[in-house]
Amino acid sequence: MSPQGGKLWGGRFVGDTDPVMEKFNASIAFDQRMWDADIRGSKAYVRALEKAKLVTTDEMTRILQGMDQLSEEWSKGIFVIQPGDEDIHTANERRLKELIGEAAGKLHTGRSRNDQVVTDMRLWMRDAISTVTENALQLISTMVERAAAEIDVLFPGYTHMQRAQPIRWSHWILRLFFQQQTYSFDAISLNSMDATGQRDFVVEFLFWASLCLTHLSKMAEDLMLYSTKEFSFITLSDAYSTGSSLMPQKKNADSLELIRSKAGRVFGRCAGFMMTLKGLPSSYNKDLQEDKEAMFDCYDTVHAVLQVTSGVMSTLKINQSVMEAALSPDMLATDLAYYLVRKGVPFREAHGISGKAVFTAESKNITLNQLTVEDLSAISPLFGSDVSSVWNYRSSVEQYSAPGGTAKSSVTAQVEHLRNWLKKQAQ
Amino acid sequence: MSPQGGKLWGGRFVGDTDPVMEKFNASIAFDQRMWDADIRGSKAYVRALEKAKLVTTDEMTRILQGMDQLSEEWSKGIFVIQPGDEDIHTANERRLKELIGEAAGKLHTGRSRNDQVVTDMRLWMRDAISTVTENALQLISTMVERAAAEIDVLFPGYTHMQRAQPIRWSHWILRLFFQQQTYSFDAISLNSMDATGQRDFVVEFLFWASLCLTHLSKMAEDLMLYSTKEFSFITLSDAYSTGSSLMPQKKNADSLELIRSKAGRVFGRCAGFMMTLKGLPSSYNKDLQEDKEAMFDCYDTVHAVLQVTSGVMSTLKINQSVMEAALSPDMLATDLAYYLVRKGVPFREAHGISGKAVFTAESKNITLNQLTVEDLSAISPLFGSDVSSVWNYRSSVEQYSAPGGTAKSSVTAQVEHLRNWLKKQAQ
Amino acid sequence: MSPQGGKLWGGRFVGDTDPVMEKFNASIAFDQRMWDADIRGSKAYVRALEKAKLVTTDEMTRILQGMDQLSEEWSKGIFVIQPGDEDIHTANERRLKELIGEAAGKLHTGRSRNDQVVTDMRLWMRDAISTVTENALQLISTMVERAAAEIDVLFPGYTHMQRAQPIRWSHWILRLFFQQQTYSFDAISLNSMDATGQRDFVVEFLFWASLCLTHLSKMAEDLMLYSTKEFSFITLSDAYSTGSSLMPQKKNADSLELIRSKAGRVFGRCAGFMMTLKGLPSSYNKDLQEDKEAMFDCYDTVHAVLQVTSGVMSTLKINQSVMEAALSPDMLATDLAYYLVRKGVPFREAHGISGKAVFTAESKNITLNQLTVEDLSAISPLFGSDVSSVWNYRSSVEQYSAPGGTAKSSVTAQVEHLRNWLKKQAQ
Amino acid sequence: MSPQGGKLWGGRFVGDTDPVMEKFNASIAFDQRMWDADIRGSKAYVRALEKAKLVTTDEMTRILQGMDQLSEEWSKGIFVIQPGDEDIHTANERRLKELIGEAAGKLHTGRSRNDQVVTDMRLWMRDAISTVTENALQLISTMVERAAAEIDVLFPGYTHMQRAQPIRWSHWILRLFFQQQTYSFDAISLNSMDATGQRDFVVEFLFWASLCLTHLSKMAEDLMLYSTKEFSFITLSDAYSTGSSLMPQKKNADSLELIRSKAGRVFGRCAGFMMTLKGLPSSYNKDLQEDKEAMFDCYDTVHAVLQVTSGVMSTLKINQSVMEAALSPDMLATDLAYYLVRKGVPFREAHGISGKAVFTAESKNITLNQLTVEDLSAISPLFGSDVSSVWNYRSSVEQYSAPGGTAKSSVTAQVEHLRNWLKKQAQ
Repeated sequence: MSPQGGKLWGGRFVGDTDPVMEKFNASIAFDQRMWDADIRGSKAYVRALEKAKLVTTDEMTRILQGMDQLSEEWSKGIFVIQPGDEDIHTANERRLKELIGEAAGKLHTGRSRNDQVVTDMRLWMRDAISTVTENALQLISTMVERAAAEIDVLFPGYTHMQRAQPIRWSHWILRLFFQQQTYSFDAISLNSMDATGQRDFVVEFLFWASLCLTHLSKMAEDLMLYSTKEFSFITLSDAYSTGSSLMPQKKNADSLELIRSKAGRVFGRCAGFMMTLKGLPSSYNKDLQEDKEAMFDCYDTVHAVLQVTSGVMSTLKINQSVMEAALSPDMLATDLAYYLVRKGVPFREAHGISGKAVFTAESKNITLNQLTVEDLSAISPLFGSDVSSVWNYRSSVEQYSAPGGTAKSSVTAQVEHLRNWLKKQAQ
Repeated sequence: MSPQGGKLWGGRFVGDTDPVMEKFNASIAFDQRMWDADIRGSKAYVRALEKAKLVTTDEMTRILQGMDQLSEEWSKGIFVIQPGDEDIHTANERRLKELIGEAAGKLHTGRSRNDQVVTDMRLWMRDAISTVTENALQLISTMVERAAAEIDVLFPGYTHMQRAQPIRWSHWILRLFFQQQTYSFDAISLNSMDATGQRDFVVEFLFWASLCLTHLSKMAEDLMLYSTKEFSFITLSDAYSTGSSLMPQKKNADSLELIRSKAGRVFGRCAGFMMTLKGLPSSYNKDLQEDKEAMFDCYDTVHAVLQVTSGVMSTLKINQSVMEAALSPDMLATDLAYYLVRKGVPFREAHGISGKAVFTAESKNITLNQLTVEDLSAISPLFGSDVSSVWNYRSSVEQYSAPGGTAKSSVTAQVEHLRNWLKKQAQ
Repeated sequence: MSPQGGKLWGGRFVGDTDPVMEKFNASIAFDQRMWDADIRGSKAYVRALEKAKLVTTDEMTRILQGMDQLSEEWSKGIFVIQPGDEDIHTANERRLKELIGEAAGKLHTGRSRNDQVVTDMRLWMRDAISTVTENALQLISTMVERAAAEIDVLFPGYTHMQRAQPIRWSHWILRLFFQQQTYSFDAISLNSMDATGQRDFVVEFLFWASLCLTHLSKMAEDLMLYSTKEFSFITLSDAYSTGSSLMPQKKNADSLELIRSKAGRVFGRCAGFMMTLKGLPSSYNKDLQEDKEAMFDCYDTVHAVLQVTSGVMSTLKINQSVMEAALSPDMLATDLAYYLVRKGVPFREAHGISGKAVFTAESKNITLNQLTVEDLSAISPLFGSDVSSVWNYRSSVEQYSAPGGTAKSSVTAQVEHLRNWLKKQAQ
Repeated sequence: MSPQGGKLWGGRFVGDTDPVMEKFNASIAFDQRMWDADIRGSKAYVRALEKAKLVTTDEMTRILQGMDQLSEEWSKGIFVIQPGDEDIHTANERRLKELIGEAAGKLHTGRSRNDQVVTDMRLWMRDAISTVTENALQLISTMVERAAAEIDVLFPGYTHMQRAQPIRWSHWILRLFFQQQTYSFDAISLNSMDATGQRDFVVEFLFWASLCLTHLSKMAEDLMLYSTKEFSFITLSDAYSTGSSLMPQKKNADSLELIRSKAGRVFGRCAGFMMTLKGLPSSYNKDLQEDKEAMFDCYDTVHAVLQVTSGVMSTLKINQSVMEAALSPDMLATDLAYYLVRKGVPFREAHGISGKAVFTAESKNITLNQLTVEDLSAISPLFGSDVSSVWNYRSSVEQYSAPGGTAKSSVTAQVEHLRNWLKKQAQ
C-alpha cells in the first residue's frame, strides 16, 4: 500500500504530506455542511450513469440505498469523520464503500471532484436562497403591516441629517422596501461551460448580500439616531437592547449596531473573494476553495440580520407626540415658496424670498410662522393674509400625493401594492 | 447683493465660504461630462411643467430654445464655465438665465438639485451602458469568428496550471463568452421611491464592471502564460505590445498586463463607494457625491478594456504546431482509465491502475504510450493490444460531444448559438 | 525611420500600435505631475554617471543646463506635450534632446524606465508626505488650542450613541489626536532590492491615508450628530455649510459629509491597488502603472480633507449651555454605585443596586436625583443623607484625573503634551 | 430574581431577549480563545486594585487563587460554558464567583467590559505576533540557507513574464526577503486614550497580514509558473502537491495555489473591518465586535501560510540544467548595447543599434550570437571581433556587483547580511 493510503490520487505519490499542508488543504471542517447536497447530487448522478449504461440497475439500487443510509447517519449526528476524509465528498465516498463495497467506486465515473464540488454548492445555495428569501419576506411583511397601522404619524424628514420637510412615518418605513425590491436572485443563472472554474453565482450572492446589508446598515443608522435621548422618536424593545456592565442607567441599541456592522463583514468576504479570483488562470485552481467559507458566512450573516431586523421592526415603539413635536415651522419654508409660485413667481425667485423670510425670522428670534403679514409683505408684496393657510403640517404632507409620495392616499397605495406582492410570493 | 452671489441658496448666508471647501464641494470638474443628459432631462421636465400648467406654453418654448442653444455651445466647446458654477446643473441654469432671462427660474419648480442629479446620472448611464454593450458585442463577435476559423486546433487544457487533457483552442475561446453571458443590465431597474438617496443603479454598474473585468483579468493571465517563450502558443500583434527601454530584444505583452490590472482599479471604485454608503442616514447626504467619479472612471475603463481586448483577440497569432506539440501522452491517462471502465472496472479502481501506469512510465523514463502491452498487463490483466487505440489526441477530444464539450460538433454548435444570439442583439 | 518613430524601443517594431491601445498604455495625462521629481532625479543621476566616468564633465554640464531649462518651461506652463510623449520621462527626454542634442541619450545609460519611474515616485511622495504632514500638524494645532480655550465645558459622553457619563468637551477634541499620533511615516522605508517591482511604499501610503480618513469619518459623524437640531451642541460656520436648492431654511453640514465620505474613496484606491498587486509575477509588470493615479488621488484627498477639517474645527461654535443642559442625573448612576463601593460593596453588587435605583426613578417618573434618601435606603440600607454629594456633574468629571482622564488637570496635561510635541515637529 | 438572571446588567431589564438576538449578540463561540489572556489581564488588574486599596490583600489572594483554578480548568479542557455566558469575560467571572464567592464581584470595580475586551485582545495579539514572527524568521532562515547553497545557479530573469536578463536563482530567492523586511510590528503602539473605541492595532495587523500575503501570492505565482511543464525550472515536493481525482497523471501545486489565494481572504477581512469602522460615532459601539473574528482568522491564516511556505521552500528541487538552458543569447542584447556604450555611443543610440541586431538575427532565423562580425558591422562600424566576449551568461551576471545586484559577491553579501540579522532576532 502506498504511503498516501486511501487518498483519491493514491496511485502515484511516494512522499509524505506535511501535516500543516494537509490541514491547509483540507476543507472537511467547513464543507461537511453540504452533506445533504452532496448526497442528493450523487443520487441524481448515479441515476444518470444508469441511463447511460455506465452502471447497472442493480449497482444503482445499491448505491442509492447506501446513500440513504449515509443520509440517516448525518441526520442523526452519528456519521464519524475519519482522519483521511479531506472533504465532504471523500468522506461520503469512503463511508459508502464501507457500506456497499466496490460498487461505490463506480459512482465517480466521468466526474471530477471539481464537478462535484460545484454541483453541491449550487444545490446548497438553492436552499440557502430559499431560506433567506423567506426571511426577507418576513421582514417586508412586518414592515408593511406596521406602515399600515401607523399611517397617521407625521415626523420630520431629514436630509443631510438636518430637518427638511414633514413626512409620514409609514413613508419612511416603506422606503426601505422599495429599495430592497431591486434585488432579485434571477440574475444568478447557470451557464453550461467552464462549470468547474466558474464562481459567478457565488460572487453574485456575496455582492447581493453586501448590498442588502448596506441598505440595512443605513436603516439601522436612522433608527439609532431616532433612539438617542435627544431624538427620542422611538424606543427599542428590551428584547433587542442590552445594558452596560459599568453604567447602570444605560440601555444600548446593540441590535442596531450589530445590524449596521454586518455590511462590512459581508462586503469584506465579497472583496476578498474577488481579489482571490483576480488574475487566476482559467479552469479550476485550488484558490477557488475560498468560495465556501465566504458563502456560508454570508448566508449565516444575512439570515441572522434579516431575522433580527424583523424582530426589531415588529417590537419597537414609536413616540408619536415627540415625533410630531419635532416638526417646526421652518420645515414649511418650501411651502411658503410654493405659495408664491402659485402667484406666478418663478421658483428660484420664490426660493430666494422664502430664504429671506427665514433669515428675518431668525434675526427676530421668532419662528417662521410668527412673522406677521406685514413682516412678510416687506419682503414681497405678494404675501397676503391667506399665507396663514401655509402653516399646517398635515396639509403640507397631503400635497405629495403622486405615486411614491408621502400623502396618506399615496402611502396607503404602497401598502396595498406590497401586500399584493407578498401574497404572490407566498403562492 | 449677498456675499454668496448667485449661489442657489443665496438668500440666507452671510459668511464666506472657505475656498478649499468650495473646491472640495464643487463637482463641475467632473460632472460637466453630463451636460447633454442635463439638457435632455431639463427639456423633458419643462414639458411636464407645461402639462401641469406650472409654466405657460410660451415659457416652455423659450426654455426649450434656450436649452438648444446651450446644447450647441457645449457641442462646439465654447461654453464657458464661470467661477460660481459649482456643478453642471448650476452652470446650465446660470447660462440659460443669461440667454432667456427670468423665465429660466421657473424650470426648477418642484425639483430639487438632488432629483436633477439622479435623473442626469440615469440618462448618462443609459447611454454609457449602450456603448459598453456595443463594445462587448464587438468582443464577442471577434471571438466567435476566431473560434469558428480555428476550430481544428488542439492544445493542452490546464488545470492548476498543469497540463490536464487535450482540448480545442476554440473551446478555450468560447468559454469566456459563456461566462460573460451571465451579466445582464436588466437587473438595473428603477424604483419609484427615495430616488434622491438611492444609488443602487450605480453600485450595480460598478459591480458588474468589476466582475466583467475580473473575467478579463483571468483571460489575460492565460494569454500572458501562452505568450511566454516557454509556452510560445500565441504571438501578440505588435499593435498590442511594447518594447523595453533597457533591453532591446524584449517585446512585452503590455496590453494584457493592463487588461489584467484594471479589475483591481474598477473593484476599488466599487469597494470605495460601498464603504462610503455604509451606515449613511437615509435620504440624500453629500457623501453620495462620490458616485459620479466612480461611475465615470469605471465606464471609461470598461470601455477601453473591451476595445483593447477585441483588438488583441482579433490580431494575435496562434502557433498551432507548438500548441499541438505540447500535447503529451500522459494527458491521455484518463482515457487509459476509461479503457478499463469500458471493461467493467469501477472508475476509482481504474484511476488507481492508470496512476500506476503513469508511475511505471516515469520510473522507466519513457512516455506513457511507450509502455508495452506486457508492461501494462503486469499492472492489470485487462489491458490488451487494443490499448493502442487510446493514444490518439484527436479521438480523445472527440469523446466530449455533450453540450458544452470540446468535440468539434459541440464547439461548432456553440459557435452557431452565439452567432444567432449576436444577430438578435443587433436587431 | 521606423514606423514607431521616436518610441524608446523603436529599433524593433514593424507593426502599428492601435490608437486605443496607445492611449490605454500612455500615462502622460497623469504622470506629468511628477515633472519636477523627474528632473531632480535625472540631475542626480547624471552626476552619478559623471563620477562613474560614463559621461564627461562637459556632457554632464550640458545635461544639467538642459534640465534647468526644462524645469523653467514646466514652471511657466509653456512645456508642450507632443503626441509621441507617452509618459513624463519620454517627454522630458525628447525635449532635452531638442535642447542639447545627442548628449541627451547618455542620460539613460544603465537605467531602465522602470527604475526612473520608481525614483520619481519616491521623490514626489517625499514632498507629498511633507505637505500632508504640515496639514496634519495644522489640524492638530487647531484642535489643541481649541481644547485649551474650552477646557471648562462639560457635555455628555456617549457610548452606543446613548448618553453615558459626563465628560469635558476638550477631552472629546483631544481623543482624535491621540489616535492620529499612532500613524507615522517612519514605516515607509526604502529597500535596496527589486526596486522596480516593489510598491510597498505606495500601498503603505494608501493604507495610512485610509486609516487617517476613517478616523476623520468618525469625528465627522460625531459632529454631524452634534449639529442636528435635536442635539444642537455645535453650530458649523457658514464657511463650511451650504444651503438647499429646494428648502430655503436648510443649512447642511456638507463639509462634514464630504469628510465622512472620503474614507471610502481612499480605501477604495487602496483595495483596488492591493487587488491589482495580488498574484502578479515578481519584477516589473505593467499592472503597476495603476500606482500613480491611486497615489495622486489619495494625496489630493487627504490634503483637502485635512485642510477642511482644520477649517471646520477652528470655526465651529459650541453651544455650552445646551451641552451642559444635556447632562442628566441618570448619567451619575455609576457614581451612585461608586458611593456604595466606597462603603465596601463589591462593584457588581453596587451596579445592581444602582440599576434598581434607576428603575425605581423611572417607575416614579422622576429623575434619579429626585429619589429621596428613604426611596434609596429601601433599596439598600447603606444609602445615607451624604448621597446628595453624588449629584454634581463637575465633581463627577474631576474624579477621572489619571493620565488620559477627563478631569481638568488631566486634559490640561494632554494639551501641554501636544503643544510640546508640536513645537518639536516644527523644529 | 430578574428575568435576565445573571446578566451583568441584570438590575434593570424586564423584557425577554429574542434568542436569535442573544446568539447574534454573543461572542463566546469565538472569544473563548482568549481565555488565557483574560485570566492574565484580570490577575494584573486585581493586583492594581489591591495597591489602590480597592480590594484587601486577602481578597486579592482569593481572587488570584480562583484565577489559577480557572486557568487549570481551561487548560485541561474541563471548563464548562453555561447558556448565560455571553462572552469569555462573563464566563470567567461567573465561574470565579462559583469558586470563591462574592469577592469575585470586586474584580470589576472601575473597569467596564469594553476596557477588559481591549486589554485581552492586546495581550492575545502580543502572543500571536510573537508566534507569527517566529514563523516568519523560520521562512527567512530557510530561504537564506537555500540561497547560500544554490548561489551558482543562473536562470532567466523575467519582466512582464518575458525573458529579460540572466540572474542568479539565489537573487530571486532573496528578493522576497528584502521586501518582507519592510514590515515591522513597531508601528503597533499603544495609546492612552479612547482605549475602548480604538482598534487601530487590529486594523494595522490585518493590513500587515494582507501586505505580507500579497507578497507571498506573488512568490507563489512565480513558483507556479516555474513548475509548469513548459518551464520545468522547479519540482515541488510531493509533500506539498496533490493529485487529481480524475486525471491520474496530474500532480498539482495545491500548496502554491492556497498560498496565492489567502491574500484575498485576509485582505477581505481588512476591507470588511475598515468598512465597519467607517463613520462610527466615537467611543465604544457594538459594531467593534467584528474585530475578533477578523483578527483570529488573519492570525490563523498567516500562521499557516508562513509555515507551508517554509516547507515548500525547503523541499522544492530546482532543475539547474533546465534553468540554465532557458538562458538565450537575446537576453544579452543589453550587454551588446553596453559594448557600444563602452566605445562612446550614447545609451539610447546603442539601444537602437542592438535592437536592429536583434531584428536582423530574427530575420535570418538565427540566434543573436550567431550573427557574424560582418553582420554586426553592417549595423554599426564600431562592432569588432572582441564582440564575442559579450556572449557569456556568467560574466554578464558578474557585471552587477553593486549592493543588491545579482553578481556572486553581491548575493553572498546579502546572504551574510541576513544571517547576521537572523542571529540578532534570535537573541
